[in-house]
Amino acid sequence: MVTNTRFGIIGGGALGGLYGCLLAKAGYEVHFLLHSDVDHVRRHGWKVETPLGDFELADVLVHASAESMPPCDVTVVALKTTQNGILAELLPKPTSQGGRVLVLQNGLDIERDSAAVVGPERVLGGCCFLCSNKVGPGHVRHLDHGRILLGDYHPSGEQVSQHALAICDDLVHAGIDAKVVADLATARWKKLIWNIPFNGLSVALNASTDELMDNPESCALARSLMKEVHQAAAACGSVMSGRVIETTLEVTREMVPYDSSMRLDYLNHRPMEVEAIFGNPIRAAIERGCEMPRVQVLYRQLLFLNQQRLASRIAAQ
Amino acid sequence: MVTNTRFGIIGGGALGGLYGCLLAKAGYEVHFLLHSDVDHVRRHGWKVETPLGDFELADVLVHASAESMPPCDVTVVALKTTQNGILAELLPKPTSQGGRVLVLQNGLDIERDSAAVVGPERVLGGCCFLCSNKVGPGHVRHLDHGRILLGDYHPSGEQVSQHALAICDDLVHAGIDAKVVADLATARWKKLIWNIPFNGLSVALNASTDELMDNPESCALARSLMKEVHQAAAACGSVMSGRVIETTLEVTREMVPYDSSMRLDYLNHRPMEVEAIFGNPIRAAIERGCEMPRVQVLYRQLLFLNQQRLASRIAAQ
Repeated sequence: MVTNTRFGIIGGGALGGLYGCLLAKAGYEVHFLLHSDVDHVRRHGWKVETPLGDFELADVLVHASAESMPPCDVTVVALKTTQNGILAELLPKPTSQGGRVLVLQNGLDIERDSAAVVGPERVLGGCCFLCSNKVGPGHVRHLDHGRILLGDYHPSGEQVSQHALAICDDLVHAGIDAKVVADLATARWKKLIWNIPFNGLSVALNASTDELMDNPESCALARSLMKEVHQAAAACGSVMSGRVIETTLEVTREMVPYDSSMRLDYLNHRPMEVEAIFGNPIRAAIERGCEMPRVQVLYRQLLFLNQQRLASRIAAQ
Repeated sequence: MVTNTRFGIIGGGALGGLYGCLLAKAGYEVHFLLHSDVDHVRRHGWKVETPLGDFELADVLVHASAESMPPCDVTVVALKTTQNGILAELLPKPTSQGGRVLVLQNGLDIERDSAAVVGPERVLGGCCFLCSNKVGPGHVRHLDHGRILLGDYHPSGEQVSQHALAICDDLVHAGIDAKVVADLATARWKKLIWNIPFNGLSVALNASTDELMDNPESCALARSLMKEVHQAAAACGSVMSGRVIETTLEVTREMVPYDSSMRLDYLNHRPMEVEAIFGNPIRAAIERGCEMPRVQVLYRQLLFLNQQRLASRIAAQ
């Protein structure tokens, strides 16, 4: 049953656009806070291509500023983590009546910036497994997958909060493959086992995931990076089976040729999410006395590349 | 005094061309074994630009095949290490009367391939500090430096061989800044402290040495790689002062903007000397129980890039 939960979606990219549209299509009240697409979506609505069935959405509730948003029950943070600096401006209005924040971002401990605004007990995080691209203004192409593993940012004991369960129900009603997890941190570390080697190497070596898997050197390098992440996760309390590394490699080998989000950002001259995906896990592990020397090499290489891109962009202006 | 030492120079690149020409100019009998330049040099001789004084060299003793070379007292191996597979064909003729082999190549234990042909006791190695480019057929542009630290490949105790001293004298007579060292391995490790970070990162990050030094992330990464090489060297018996790392960084900061030999190879679609500069030191250290995890990341990245280049070159044929 569709409840009267009111959603705010902060960010109209491939992820926020897709999930927001699925919720709106299901009958939920969804308010989009958009930046570059605001006029286009206001006039023409959304266009969504998805294996769930293509659809268009007219009469969308669109906002150019957080100030015009109503108080929402759930405010979904669907920005890149590189934009987290503006959350302090964007979140207060839609969360003004005590609603929850659901952070659908990549990386580790990226809920911290939202928690600094609304308090950690009101924050949930979602780990998304989604192949979706923004192909034009107001136009999302969802290719594959779409699962969200969501959980409380600061869980109280083993218990999953009622809020997490309720939000998950809403997402499932909208046709989204959502699932509540008691241990969000472990879900995030598990995703990092893929993200750290394949986001990092795809940029550092300018290669797609299938090129990385086909070459024995890059494949061995990916495996050695995964081992470090696996150990770091355990040091941080997220103990995973040793099988997770080989399983992740097998799944990657079977994937359709796929460009990681970080590679797409790099190729499109956007800032990469280096701190969320590399810096935060490295620092979390060091706090527990665990070093990831190989991951650190990739981290510094990506920071270098990020800074070179930024410098050349400034020079071009 | 110029002796009657007869030199054979295997390879007419920026290094073999320069040193061979300086020896010939000084009056030594020098036989060049050339590949692509053989006709040009036979007809037009060598042209050498150097801070020591530009000169041209006519009537050069040029060979297109090792079979036409006479027995030489000193056969200088001035090929890239990636070509060492052909030394078994090239060395027997010029060394047939018991002459010595002087290996002027980059990396660690790269004398092994020459030693396999003539025996280790007849092999010397030289560690070159040279900025020199091949700018056209038979045309060498020597920019800066030129020192050779040479020593016996298999030293007998602390003593430097008479052969090493005699060859050094000849080089010095030809105006070359040559010096005999008792411990060739340590000289090679010391050079690797520069070569491993700056050859490797200049390719992996597509950057010149000044760009790498100017960025705090790549500079910190270079330092962490240097520390691993420093420790590995010590594990292999080449103990160096801890100051060598900061000194090398300072010297690099003061360098004119400079492309490492590996970057030039990469940019010019030539195979890179990955095994000589990375693989051999990594394996030598592992044999002594010392891992270099950061260096291994760079090693595998370079192997990947080398193989991708090779694959695209084959595909283009």
